[in-house]
Amino acid sequence: MLNIQTFSKDDFDRYCSHLVQTHPLVHCMTNDVVQEITADVLLAAGASPAMIIDEHESADFAAIADCLLVNVGTLTDDRYKAMLLAVEACCRHSKPWVLDPVAAGLLPWRDERVSELARKKPTVIRGNASEILSLAGMGQGGHGVDSKDDSRDAVNGAAALAKRYDCVVAVTGETDFVTDGKRLLSVSGGDVMSTLVVGTGCSLSALVAAYCAQSDCPLEATAAALKMAKLASETAASVSQGPGSFHPAYLDALYRLARNHF
Amino acid sequence: MLNIQTFSKDDFDRYCSHLVQTHPLVHCMTNDVVQEITADVLLAAGASPAMIIDEHESADFAAIADCLLVNVGTLTDDRYKAMLLAVEACCRHSKPWVLDPVAAGLLPWRDERVSELARKKPTVIRGNASEILSLAGMGQGGHGVDSKDDSRDAVNGAAALAKRYDCVVAVTGETDFVTDGKRLLSVSGGDVMSTLVVGTGCSLSALVAAYCAQSDCPLEATAAALKMAKLASETAASVSQGPGSFHPAYLDALYRLARNHF
Amino acid sequence: MLNIQTFSKDDFDRYCSHLVQTHPLVHCMTNDVVQEITADVLLAAGASPAMIIDEHESADFAAIADCLLVNVGTLTDDRYKAMLLAVEACCRHSKPWVLDPVAAGLLPWRDERVSELARKKPTVIRGNASEILSLAGMGQGGHGVDSKDDSRDAVNGAAALAKRYDCVVAVTGETDFVTDGKRLLSVSGGDVMSTLVVGTGCSLSALVAAYCAQSDCPLEATAAALKMAKLASETAASVSQGPGSFHPAYLDALYRLARNHF
Repeated sequence: MLNIQTFSKDDFDRYCSHLVQTHPLVHCMTNDVVQEITADVLLAAGASPAMIIDEHESADFAAIADCLLVNVGTLTDDRYKAMLLAVEACCRHSKPWVLDPVAAGLLPWRDERVSELARKKPTVIRGNASEILSLAGMGQGGHGVDSKDDSRDAVNGAAALAKRYDCVVAVTGETDFVTDGKRLLSVSGGDVMSTLVVGTGCSLSALVAAYCAQSDCPLEATAAALKMAKLASETAASVSQGPGSFHPAYLDALYRLARNHF
Repeated sequence: MLNIQTFSKDDFDRYCSHLVQTHPLVHCMTNDVVQEITADVLLAAGASPAMIIDEHESADFAAIADCLLVNVGTLTDDRYKAMLLAVEACCRHSKPWVLDPVAAGLLPWRDERVSELARKKPTVIRGNASEILSLAGMGQGGHGVDSKDDSRDAVNGAAALAKRYDCVVAVTGETDFVTDGKRLLSVSGGDVMSTLVVGTGCSLSALVAAYCAQSDCPLEATAAALKMAKLASETAASVSQGPGSFHPAYLDALYRLARNHF
Repeated sequence: MLNIQTFSKDDFDRYCSHLVQTHPLVHCMTNDVVQEITADVLLAAGASPAMIIDEHESADFAAIADCLLVNVGTLTDDRYKAMLLAVEACCRHSKPWVLDPVAAGLLPWRDERVSELARKKPTVIRGNASEILSLAGMGQGGHGVDSKDDSRDAVNGAAALAKRYDCVVAVTGETDFVTDGKRLLSVSGGDVMSTLVVGTGCSLSALVAAYCAQSDCPLEATAAALKMAKLASETAASVSQGPGSFHPAYLDALYRLARNHF
């Protein structure tokens, strides 16, 4: 069992400055449900999103962008083909890419493709406890796209997965954990209201990609993205009356965190 | 002509408690425009959304989920094929499913597919007056996706349609009407501002699916979903300055209605 | 070099009255990211949106609607085929249509299709400076979907483009410019916060289409749409704390501008 190190606000500040100054271009190949919130989160946080999704363009654009997000939420044959081309271009050009294995463990067709993607050298895999446990071969699937498991119970699975694929694995929940198989960081904070707004998890994976752009340490860069979301969630929860008002307040809070580093 | 029974706030409360306690998993196959608001409405109201849209997965997931929404707003051949597979899986597994016949009566290709879906034993058909009249063979089409007709004028068409397909038909508008061909419920309230926010109607069909999950009486379950939307619209309109602020206020209001039943 | 005429608030008021009274039906074929904000902007501003995207329906619906928006943000072969059919139907039925050449100049496959669309007699081309310069053959591409260039530097390119395709060209930025190659209008105002909300540009192209419906002067109709967005952005910025709260405030402001003309 790895020792848990707490990732602090000061650690976050350093990475946030880097993000704001480099203004990374994030190539997003994500599901149909979260396109808007994903773009809005990246813009608020100081990055630049671009959704280029077709097989005719995805590899070309992966070579131009600073990083890539691949999220399998509403996967189809066409989108998957384009994702593989983008992922391979990332590997050729040494660009970081993040895999969000939405609903892994529920449906065989999806699981085959998620496994194939996981073998293509993602920089980071970011999922909830059920998804990470499923990928690690220890799970039984979630409740649709929601987790049935606690993030704490997925830490060993995350570490095993990180070693198997030589990547960073982030398992998010009430407390988030990030590991590369050697170190284990915990990120606390946040608010449960974020689970009632669709896309807070999916857009977080995009934010992880942004933080990993031009970073030497994807482990800490990932923790910085998670910390930003936790901090913004706390602020948003303190000023909102429900999930509806939480959504704009969350974007405003991300924006103010980023602005402190302009 | 059927007698009109008013569906009350007390009736609603009973169904809302059931929804919150059972936290149904709602399989959403809906149009590209309303994905986010559909998921957000379900989350706020105490249900769990999952958008599984591809033919490789839609039947498998329909067997896992508690109910299904089929909305033809941005129909394509691929999405239609996947919808048919999901609908057939619902029928095999006795899961309720809701048909939202967006823009029925305007375009022949769509109308053929909507008719085919209507014959596949939907639990509920939910549409505006123009759509319901068109399906009943009494209409002349709407203004794009908006209704040209008053919901009151579609009551007879709704009852005829309910008898023809042995299902519940809900026609929504200034006053909503729900019928199974034998009983006719009316649901009043709401605010016209909801018509200026895209997806309030489409997400309402998803909410109808959620209420019908594990319900013995889809007629009343449908009315309960409509009542929840009416109540939340009134609250949202009273605190908002236009359609922009109405949207988050509507989600907050749904959330508070659901929370009263935790 | 053309003389610059300022498009005033009074000019805008006249066109806004026309829009509100005619309530045009806007056929939107746009990218996956901005579907919701595009529909919400049109509804708030007094128009009626409908997203009909498939090749089986796009030509039929183009004949029914009052105008068409074509936005290539998340272009695929299928969507492109349907767009061409819709554009050709618009030309046959003398309906105005607007081309939004998202990310023109970055990717060869997209550029070929954007050029083909530009040759199909759009009423208006609306883009940022990098996109317009690229189409005019004077550019070097943007930073993903964002502009690297100032709108002022694209005025000559816009005028050349307008003459080449015999259409109106709008280049938007800190100040917007609209030209038909003979006259040049400038539209000032707005707020930089709008650049941190995804879809403010794309939905503006839809608003341009709405204003061009049943207009004798697409040059001024386009400027009116741009002015409406500038005015709404200023109001929204004055009452919001970041991009999250800007979004609903922007829709509310559009709604109030339209309401003044009911």
